[in-house]
Amino acid sequence: MAVMQAEIIAIGSELLSGRVINTNAAYLSRQLQALGIAARRHLAVPDEPAAIVEAITAALHRSDLILITGGLGPTDDDITVQALARALGQPLVRSSQAARHVQRLYRRHGAHLSRLAARQAFVPRGARPLPNPLGTAPGVWWERGATRLIALPGVPQEMRAILQASVLPRLRRLRPAGALATRTIRTIGVLELQLQRLLRRFHLPPGVSVGFYPNLLMVDVQLTATSTSARRAAMLLDGIERRLHRALGRAIYAVGEPSLEAVAGESLVRHRATVAIAESCTGGLVSTVLTEVPGSSRYVTLSVVAYHNQAKIHVLGVAPALLARHGAVSAPVARAMAEGARRLSGSTFGVSVTGIAGPGGGTADKPVGLVYLAWAGPQGTQVARKFFYGDRAGIRRQAAQLALNGLRLAANALTPSSRR
Amino acid sequence: MAVMQAEIIAIGSELLSGRVINTNAAYLSRQLQALGIAARRHLAVPDEPAAIVEAITAALHRSDLILITGGLGPTDDDITVQALARALGQPLVRSSQAARHVQRLYRRHGAHLSRLAARQAFVPRGARPLPNPLGTAPGVWWERGATRLIALPGVPQEMRAILQASVLPRLRRLRPAGALATRTIRTIGVLELQLQRLLRRFHLPPGVSVGFYPNLLMVDVQLTATSTSARRAAMLLDGIERRLHRALGRAIYAVGEPSLEAVAGESLVRHRATVAIAESCTGGLVSTVLTEVPGSSRYVTLSVVAYHNQAKIHVLGVAPALLARHGAVSAPVARAMAEGARRLSGSTFGVSVTGIAGPGGGTADKPVGLVYLAWAGPQGTQVARKFFYGDRAGIRRQAAQLALNGLRLAANALTPSSRR
Repeated sequence: MAVMQAEIIAIGSELLSGRVINTNAAYLSRQLQALGIAARRHLAVPDEPAAIVEAITAALHRSDLILITGGLGPTDDDITVQALARALGQPLVRSSQAARHVQRLYRRHGAHLSRLAARQAFVPRGARPLPNPLGTAPGVWWERGATRLIALPGVPQEMRAILQASVLPRLRRLRPAGALATRTIRTIGVLELQLQRLLRRFHLPPGVSVGFYPNLLMVDVQLTATSTSARRAAMLLDGIERRLHRALGRAIYAVGEPSLEAVAGESLVRHRATVAIAESCTGGLVSTVLTEVPGSSRYVTLSVVAYHNQAKIHVLGVAPALLARHGAVSAPVARAMAEGARRLSGSTFGVSVTGIAGPGGGTADKPVGLVYLAWAGPQGTQVARKFFYGDRAGIRRQAAQLALNGLRLAANALTPSSRR
Repeated sequence: MAVMQAEIIAIGSELLSGRVINTNAAYLSRQLQALGIAARRHLAVPDEPAAIVEAITAALHRSDLILITGGLGPTDDDITVQALARALGQPLVRSSQAARHVQRLYRRHGAHLSRLAARQAFVPRGARPLPNPLGTAPGVWWERGATRLIALPGVPQEMRAILQASVLPRLRRLRPAGALATRTIRTIGVLELQLQRLLRRFHLPPGVSVGFYPNLLMVDVQLTATSTSARRAAMLLDGIERRLHRALGRAIYAVGEPSLEAVAGESLVRHRATVAIAESCTGGLVSTVLTEVPGSSRYVTLSVVAYHNQAKIHVLGVAPALLARHGAVSAPVARAMAEGARRLSGSTFGVSVTGIAGPGGGTADKPVGLVYLAWAGPQGTQVARKFFYGDRAGIRRQAAQLALNGLRLAANALTPSSRR
């Protein structure tokens, strides 16, 4: 199959007023990228028939894969399907499959199927409805020759659900000449530039492509391989993944979807370990991110945000002399905070962060961006001194990423005998 | 002046690979909306001359205001200005003003002006460079007849700085027939639908338009008025604002930019009051948001995330019998947590949140989404029982919004004699 030219069209006046940020386009692009398909345009147009018809008609002349999001709901301004039918020059026909689905959902919610909702059972002639596991609006799949047009709801969860269940598998099957494999290697603490250089040195075989998705200290490396079979494509990626593991070691925190906080949590659960946090400049962010994981109450016991020195002394048991001699942003205080949180909660680990997030509070000695972190555990306490660039939010987020990464490494280093 | 037709074009392959979400388009749209200008299209194209020239050429035929973001930097893939010159049919000419600015910035960073960086001093003939207070790449302003084309950097901070300093004032002046005023009324706890109904009942005079920007429990109401003078336009808004204050009272937490956490913080500072937080299901989010405000160390003393009951008992002093009798998610425990945090830290206020964020942990009696909040202060303790819809993240964020709002209200209710 030749290289697909894709474009993504978002329909919704709420995007053009700035009320909603179009996150769907980036998500779809990344999913397509993983299939070796490059998106060439993102477009957003308002909920107006003429604008939608014009956008779809122009896209049909230019691209062989068109993904549309939004305007599939039951309300008056949801007119994507009508506009689609006009752009394709097809009448709307009732899909009994879609009708059954819409009826079932409305009944489940105890509502009668209104005339408006019944509209959701219609698709342009020749199109196929795609089941929506989360809502009433089915997706739409239409193809003619080499051109494919797919319409999905604008609600991100529904869009993603239909995409994963019905669209990506079909797109994958469109590659008869070459099977495709994709893999995401998630790293922390390695610069994007270093990763780019490393992969350049690998002299990747033809058919393998790489994308980099940085997020402060973390970079996702997304590998895509095409070969004569899915097995061969996966083997190509296995080889690259092995080389990345050798080169990067513990800087790789996951392969695939898991987040850093989920990986750290899994490691704690695996070792039947628990953690307590003592934060200062991050203000609760380490704890917030760690508890974003469902079930984190199994291993997070306590977090103390000791913003004032009095809290560091009275709650965490930091010695006043330590604060007087070294200041709150110092290695000894970071150590005392981590050990205090561990002791106070009786947890396996105590993790601490103390630093200067700015914009005020910096000095020549202790500038904005200086952060001390400590990890106390059964094998002793590690302290790190770091300097982060960025604004207040960026400094806090980087410090939290590093705190969680240290927790992951400490938990992984637990041996059965070192458990507490 | 007739209604302006605006479109926004983002240039950057990082957008089309899904590496970066295009937040600039929504920001620009909202700023234009406040000027009474509707954006009709958002488009993103890759860093390729042909694609950029085509996008600009098409936009020039369609719209009288074109905002372009991205591709203004010094690197090889920053080619917006060249493409702009081609689309406009103008040669590039050196701007001495832009050259001086770029040179000054490079010198400040101790770097020599490379040939690449020197490119940033060129603009299409007839265009004006717009000074960039935060970076080297100047913006570009070009106009012919009623058409205006403005190119801005892709880095959001730089884009926003040039927009606020040089673009919005010029666009405002383009309204000789009618002066414009705009105002944002920030509310919490009122449904978007209720606000829409309320404003419909106001029978707004012609020339006044309203936009709604919801964020969970909060809705921004953006009012825009045009009249024969700026003073008259502002007076129109004064009248509407007064009516909104009468109808909504304390549900309005700010007029203009301030965030809820900043408003709560200002009220604490004004009353020389302090606060301590005790969180359970929000996992540190209340504390994280409260300390996002620079200078929040003046009033945030301590936050305890008591995820385990042991932490609630040993750190916050919640009576074990209370936990045994009512469970951790209950009004008495919320009260004890808020009072415990207040006592432990010696703060003016203690705020607590305890609930079930899900997805697991819900029962028929205490379903996912049930949250108790408490605010303890010199005038006693208030407890609220709430039920939030949404996923884990949404429930946590709504609970945090409500906790901060209660803190704002409690701080505002302080009288000089009730201070502690």
